[in-house]
Amino acid sequence: MNAGTARRFGINRRVVLSATALIPLPLLHIPSALAQEANSQLASWNDGPAKQTIIEFVRVTTDQANPKFVPPEERIATFDQDGTLWVEHPMYTQVVYCLDRVPAVVAQRPELKEREPFKIVLSGDREQMAKLSLRDLEEILLATLTGMPVEVFETEVKKWIETAKHPRWKRLYTELTYQPMLELLQYLRANRYKTYIVTGGGQDFVRVYSQQVYGIPPEQVVGTAGGTKYGYDQGGKPFLTKEPKLLLNDNDAGKPEGIHLEIGRRPRAAFGNSTGDRQMLEYTGAGAGARLKVLVLHDDAKREYEYGPARGLPDTKVGTFTQELYDEATKDGWTIVSMKSDWKRILAFE
Amino acid sequence: MNAGTARRFGINRRVVLSATALIPLPLLHIPSALAQEANSQLASWNDGPAKQTIIEFVRVTTDQANPKFVPPEERIATFDQDGTLWVEHPMYTQVVYCLDRVPAVVAQRPELKEREPFKIVLSGDREQMAKLSLRDLEEILLATLTGMPVEVFETEVKKWIETAKHPRWKRLYTELTYQPMLELLQYLRANRYKTYIVTGGGQDFVRVYSQQVYGIPPEQVVGTAGGTKYGYDQGGKPFLTKEPKLLLNDNDAGKPEGIHLEIGRRPRAAFGNSTGDRQMLEYTGAGAGARLKVLVLHDDAKREYEYGPARGLPDTKVGTFTQELYDEATKDGWTIVSMKSDWKRILAFE
Repeated sequence: MNAGTARRFGINRRVVLSATALIPLPLLHIPSALAQEANSQLASWNDGPAKQTIIEFVRVTTDQANPKFVPPEERIATFDQDGTLWVEHPMYTQVVYCLDRVPAVVAQRPELKEREPFKIVLSGDREQMAKLSLRDLEEILLATLTGMPVEVFETEVKKWIETAKHPRWKRLYTELTYQPMLELLQYLRANRYKTYIVTGGGQDFVRVYSQQVYGIPPEQVVGTAGGTKYGYDQGGKPFLTKEPKLLLNDNDAGKPEGIHLEIGRRPRAAFGNSTGDRQMLEYTGAGAGARLKVLVLHDDAKREYEYGPARGLPDTKVGTFTQELYDEATKDGWTIVSMKSDWKRILAFE
Repeated sequence: MNAGTARRFGINRRVVLSATALIPLPLLHIPSALAQEANSQLASWNDGPAKQTIIEFVRVTTDQANPKFVPPEERIATFDQDGTLWVEHPMYTQVVYCLDRVPAVVAQRPELKEREPFKIVLSGDREQMAKLSLRDLEEILLATLTGMPVEVFETEVKKWIETAKHPRWKRLYTELTYQPMLELLQYLRANRYKTYIVTGGGQDFVRVYSQQVYGIPPEQVVGTAGGTKYGYDQGGKPFLTKEPKLLLNDNDAGKPEGIHLEIGRRPRAAFGNSTGDRQMLEYTGAGAGARLKVLVLHDDAKREYEYGPARGLPDTKVGTFTQELYDEATKDGWTIVSMKSDWKRILAFE
């Protein structure tokens, strides 16, 4: 190993000199040892350009001798949730939660019983429910996500998420996380990246289970957020009520705006799967130095779902990955992860 | 030392057995050793009830055998900035910044030159400036804190904070931090508390220097926050512009609301010095288990300033600590830190 090689692999000369005296020669192949370790940490990833790009990004940004080195405190990686970390089809999990909550809300507010869209939801008619407009959905979201103390909401979500099951796999939603992405989160954290969720979903919703499911603490979840209102109960004890006031719509341009609001640093790496993540990836990419921009493409109809409409995949409106986004990603050198070819395994239990 | 004692002090029996074989007996007085360590970490604090309460809080919440033990991930401590971590008199540092920025803003927007309140600020007439109304100040804040890309703002603040000096001490503002509070931040972090600033000041402003001055990274600064707007420059490069739209007024009830928005956990310990911190301390105190609520009282006219009007101190409008707040604190068992008697040293350079 000459000095150039050592520098290229980020090894300080003095360290090499003192270490070589103690270590048998075969162990000095540090780069391949590192690569091997990464390989085993990313065991559910097939070898290919996506995996290689990720490993290379981590290598250069964590190697002090590399010009692309990033100090640990600046190692911020942001992940979209729905469709990037877990299954989003046939319906966003939080929307399922809201629909499931309607009977309980109507029980407390009987005046809603005969009113649309609540009447349709109460009828249980799936076909009609699938036709609900965005405005109908918003009304359901408002009724089920606001108006209660934050702790009451947390308790309700916790109870639901521990029992509700996905219609296809008959498994808890929290089991429908992508194994390769869980490995990636761990791998990045092992390399001192601080992992954040930046989701279009409700931040109070995701915070309930983020630690348990992703190893991401609530304070590292940025999401669509409403205001809260401080008040006192009859005993004078203060509490916060969830208000029907939108502070942050954490989709599209809202993602970089939310990142600035709640993190205050530009990410070094960002992961998404739809047009709603476009601005987050653009913003990440616009910073100086090494940046990783990754989009997950749902192209595996058999093991998960197939939708796009990038590369001619059907557009199913949930998690739309347009051809335009695909073209931008290709042009700007973003990494496209094909679930079909880049992932050895998709769901942990399979 | 019997098993009960060991358990009470959170010491695993096996560790004790193996350690006792190696350590001379006098060193086994671990509790007093811990207390001694805390004492040396809080070297600028006089012995007294305030210091004792803080040390005792940390002891019980970090001792696994104690019923008041708090898991590390829940150890959140929030600190007001102005008047709690650094000097806020005679004027909030950020307001000084905004006034100092007026000439540069007027140079770019000449139409403001002959308009109040900008005209008064440009005149440099301190007496007139002191009489500016809240509405005048808001207009100055809007003109100097919004309308520019976030990076431009950061660069401007950085440049200013590295040169601007406090009129009394002729020192950089960043030198006017309270030494006992810097020690306290360190002490809490050494005990795996995550320290946050929760300030009525602008979060983008404080984030520029929080790491360097307090060891608190930008993502752990919650403050008054405006919206940003995502857009592209002429070369197609995305950037965020600071908008004149208030998202969070992080004062009074806004503090617990901001904590919920950006942290999502109720603090275990909260530190403030004025009525603007009241709700943050109430909210902190309303959680179950051990909670620490601390108010700093400015009662040292000689070494710093003397204002209140708690305990008959003059009300100077900046950092008002009312008698009502003092009474609530006393009634609910909050800890009052007297700068005069609890702090051996106030400013690090003195």
